[in-house]
Amino acid sequence: MATQDELKKQAAAQAVAMVQPNTVLGVGTGSTVAFFIDLLGQRNRQTPLNLKALVTTSSRSKQQLEANGFTVSELAEVAQVDLCIDGADRVDHQLDGIKGGGGALTLEKNVAINAKHNVWIVDQSKVVDRLGGFPLPVEVLPVSCEQNFRRFDRQGLQPAYRLKADGSRYVTHYGNYIIDLHVDPLPIPAGLAAMLDSTVGVVEHGLFLGMTDEVLIATESKIEHWTRK
Amino acid sequence: MATQDELKKQAAAQAVAMVQPNTVLGVGTGSTVAFFIDLLGQRNRQTPLNLKALVTTSSRSKQQLEANGFTVSELAEVAQVDLCIDGADRVDHQLDGIKGGGGALTLEKNVAINAKHNVWIVDQSKVVDRLGGFPLPVEVLPVSCEQNFRRFDRQGLQPAYRLKADGSRYVTHYGNYIIDLHVDPLPIPAGLAAMLDSTVGVVEHGLFLGMTDEVLIATESKIEHWTRK
Repeated sequence: MATQDELKKQAAAQAVAMVQPNTVLGVGTGSTVAFFIDLLGQRNRQTPLNLKALVTTSSRSKQQLEANGFTVSELAEVAQVDLCIDGADRVDHQLDGIKGGGGALTLEKNVAINAKHNVWIVDQSKVVDRLGGFPLPVEVLPVSCEQNFRRFDRQGLQPAYRLKADGSRYVTHYGNYIIDLHVDPLPIPAGLAAMLDSTVGVVEHGLFLGMTDEVLIATESKIEHWTRK
Repeated sequence: MATQDELKKQAAAQAVAMVQPNTVLGVGTGSTVAFFIDLLGQRNRQTPLNLKALVTTSSRSKQQLEANGFTVSELAEVAQVDLCIDGADRVDHQLDGIKGGGGALTLEKNVAINAKHNVWIVDQSKVVDRLGGFPLPVEVLPVSCEQNFRRFDRQGLQPAYRLKADGSRYVTHYGNYIIDLHVDPLPIPAGLAAMLDSTVGVVEHGLFLGMTDEVLIATESKIEHWTRK
C-alpha cells in the first residue's frame, strides 16, 4: 500500500502532466503543490517546457521554483495565466472551497480568477460534504476592522483576529488584518460570499466558489479526479 | 441675490445645526464642507459641543478642523459615527451618488457605512437625473490591475488609469491604483456596483448607493433639502 506522501506525489505527477509547453503557469502553495514543483522541475530538466511565464502565490513556492531553475514573474507582468495549480484548505463535491489558511488569499484569488483553467491538488483530509471544518479567512482594512468585527459577531459568524505567535495581529502582504470566521459549517456559502463581497472594508475572503475546474485528491488508496460538471 | 458662496455657506450652516453635542461626528471634504468646518468651529467656540470624537476623510479637512481647535481621531478608534457630513461629486434624486474624485473613496465609504446618519452638502452643479457626468473611480490592487483594466474595457466601461501631474499613476493611501470609468451615464448603477463588489482585485468603488439619508443643495436661489424616502 502506498504511503500518503506517495499518493500526494502521484496526484502531483498527474498535475505536472497537465502542464503544456509554451504556456503561462500559475503555482500555488501546499504540501501536495510542493511535490508538484519538484516533479515539474524534473520534467523541465528532461524536456524543457519553455514556459512563457510562471507566477506564484507565496515566497515559499517562489524559492522552491527558483531552486528548480524556473524564473518567477509577477501576475501584473502577464496577460493571462493558462493553467493554475494550487492547493486548498477545504473542498466540497461542487469543487467550491476555502483557501487562505496561509494568509495569501488575496493574491491566490487574483491569480485564480485570471487563470483560464484552475486545478487543485489536495489530500483527502481537505474534502468536506459541506464547506466548513476550517475557519474562513476574511482580509479587512484596518480602518474599519473593529466595526466589521462587531458586525460579523452580531451575524453569528464567530470572528477572531488572526494572531502571530507573539500575540499581535497578523498583517497581510497588503497591510491588512485577517478575521477568521469560525462558524461551522458555513451558512449558505454563496450568500455569505456575496455579503462579504459587498461589505465595505473587506478586501477579499477565502471562499473560492465556481473558480476551480478540476481537483486531484490523494486518498488513502488512489488518486480521485473530479471535474466541474 | 446671494452669491454661490453665500448659498454654500447657508447649506453648511444648516448642516452645522444638525450636529448634536456629545456625539461622534464624521467630516468629509469639499468646497461646501470647507464652509461647514469653519462654521462648526465658530459654533463650538461660542457653545462647546463637547464632541465625543471627530473623524475625517482627508488631510485637508483634518488640518482645517485642527485649525478650528478640534481633535481628530481615527475611525478605528471610535465605535460608531453618529452623523457624517460629506460632499459628493454627483448625486441623483434617489440620493445615490458618485464620490472619489479626490481619490479617498475607500476611506470615505468606510466612514459613511459606519455612520448612523449621512448628510451630503453640495452645490447644484453636482445634481444629475441619471448617475453620470463624472468618471466613476474604482480602486484596484496593482497585482491584477492590468487584467481588471482589460475586463472593464471589454465591458465597455471606458477605463482610464488616474494619473498624477507627472504622468505616473496616482497611488491611493492604501497603495492601490484608481481606474476611472468614463462610461456616461452609468449603466444600471446597482448592477454595476454589485459587479464591482464581486470583482476580485477591486478594493472599493465610488458608487455610494442607499447610504445617504439627507442632501442639502445650494442652488442659485435657495437651499434645497432632500430626505431619503
